[in-house]
Amino acid sequence: MLVNTRVVRIEWGDCDPAGIVYYPRYMAFFDACTSALIERALGMTKHEYLKAYDFGGHPLVSTRARFLIPTRFGDDVTIETTVTVFRRSSFDVRHHLTKNGKLAVEGLETRVWVRGDPTRGTMKSAPVPQDVIERLSGG
Amino acid sequence: MLVNTRVVRIEWGDCDPAGIVYYPRYMAFFDACTSALIERALGMTKHEYLKAYDFGGHPLVSTRARFLIPTRFGDDVTIETTVTVFRRSSFDVRHHLTKNGKLAVEGLETRVWVRGDPTRGTMKSAPVPQDVIERLSGG
Amino acid sequence: MLVNTRVVRIEWGDCDPAGIVYYPRYMAFFDACTSALIERALGMTKHEYLKAYDFGGHPLVSTRARFLIPTRFGDDVTIETTVTVFRRSSFDVRHHLTKNGKLAVEGLETRVWVRGDPTRGTMKSAPVPQDVIERLSGG
Amino acid sequence: MLVNTRVVRIEWGDCDPAGIVYYPRYMAFFDACTSALIERALGMTKHEYLKAYDFGGHPLVSTRARFLIPTRFGDDVTIETTVTVFRRSSFDVRHHLTKNGKLAVEGLETRVWVRGDPTRGTMKSAPVPQDVIERLSGG
Repeated sequence: MLVNTRVVRIEWGDCDPAGIVYYPRYMAFFDACTSALIERALGMTKHEYLKAYDFGGHPLVSTRARFLIPTRFGDDVTIETTVTVFRRSSFDVRHHLTKNGKLAVEGLETRVWVRGDPTRGTMKSAPVPQDVIERLSGG
Repeated sequence: MLVNTRVVRIEWGDCDPAGIVYYPRYMAFFDACTSALIERALGMTKHEYLKAYDFGGHPLVSTRARFLIPTRFGDDVTIETTVTVFRRSSFDVRHHLTKNGKLAVEGLETRVWVRGDPTRGTMKSAPVPQDVIERLSGG
Repeated sequence: MLVNTRVVRIEWGDCDPAGIVYYPRYMAFFDACTSALIERALGMTKHEYLKAYDFGGHPLVSTRARFLIPTRFGDDVTIETTVTVFRRSSFDVRHHLTKNGKLAVEGLETRVWVRGDPTRGTMKSAPVPQDVIERLSGG
Repeated sequence: MLVNTRVVRIEWGDCDPAGIVYYPRYMAFFDACTSALIERALGMTKHEYLKAYDFGGHPLVSTRARFLIPTRFGDDVTIETTVTVFRRSSFDVRHHLTKNGKLAVEGLETRVWVRGDPTRGTMKSAPVPQDVIERLSGG
């Protein structure tokens, strides 16, 4: 599978009064990393790939995360993102966030490929296009 | 178990270009709802209870969420929060976010009761105080 | 002028490692308060009023803020929001955030009433409708 | 004066239902850029420089911003940050955010150098250290 790697600086504003990351910020990082993985696979920005595939996005069905080592402002962490499973119209994404080479956070997402307009309630799952699967598989 | 209920207005700024909630915002809601539950149980603000129990907070060990119905700006949603399990130094929290009476998002958290300073790497789990357990149990 | 008042609880997640509000969160509060003012004036949610007036929103042209007293998690602050000036297609909004009756933050925004789609670069200013002016004026 | 430059990718999650940046995110970018400028000037992370200078941070006294060109997800913008004025215990920071070489957002901040603990209400302004001024001046 294709793996995309990002280095993220943990900022002061990502942290809470305990001085460590406010965990919804990890979810924001992971969401951006999923888009970055697809962008890299398809060679387009998200803005472009939403148009090219005429689709509404890849909202979450479910997410899980484990927090093993705290991170704090000033840390540079590495996030490795890859798809682990494809189903007909959904797929699983795994994020490994490491700090100094050690796994600090693991994030797992199940996302669905949708057509239509989520705001109008017309959001409907659709098959993940075959070439998207191939490119994300690194084939 | 004690259940705390909050009504949250989904704001424009909580939503992404698809017009539906940007999911890290749910995590922010849930984090605030966990604090609100403990505040209600103890009759203190978080600022006060961190001092009163001389502890460093209740960071997450893990979290899970399922997204069943999308919400969008202008929606008023209800979040019911309760502890489901106590262990020696950790506890599980469940959030049910409903929209028009239907379950839209379920969030599950495992949190640990810690002493020491997370920023200095001296964060250490500690037993959840018995009176905290009793008050959260609604006993 | 019509004044809308909101009480906002400062949450743990709104604060940074100094334990006081991370100031972009004030901007998020103010943005929601501007929408709340218009919602109250028009008797519609933002979702509804964007449709009813067939417009693209009221993005900022400029903003200013002064920070007089710090706020921290557990504080309940009051935000009073009102329009101070109408121009042809823009208007000024003032937010007074008070803590224990004292002015803690003042926010000033100039916003423009736009038609068209900002994402397609077709965003264009349009006259603020007369009935919107009247209702926001409390007349 | 020393100028620090950052390239920032506008993410999906930075944008609102209009598809353009939710403006509090600009403030988050600017706050991180101010820290990055000081980090570069002093050759330390913020975590390190707060300790080295035994101070409580550089909270805002006031901020202003002008929004000239909208940005949307997928845009790579450049932020140039520099101090423009030093006073005894405060200083002004200017951020120029450009998109394709054109000024899209200008942000101006007045910050104060503080000692003591903002959470305990003991926050007090202190003179900006001379070597900090020199390094930020690029001298």
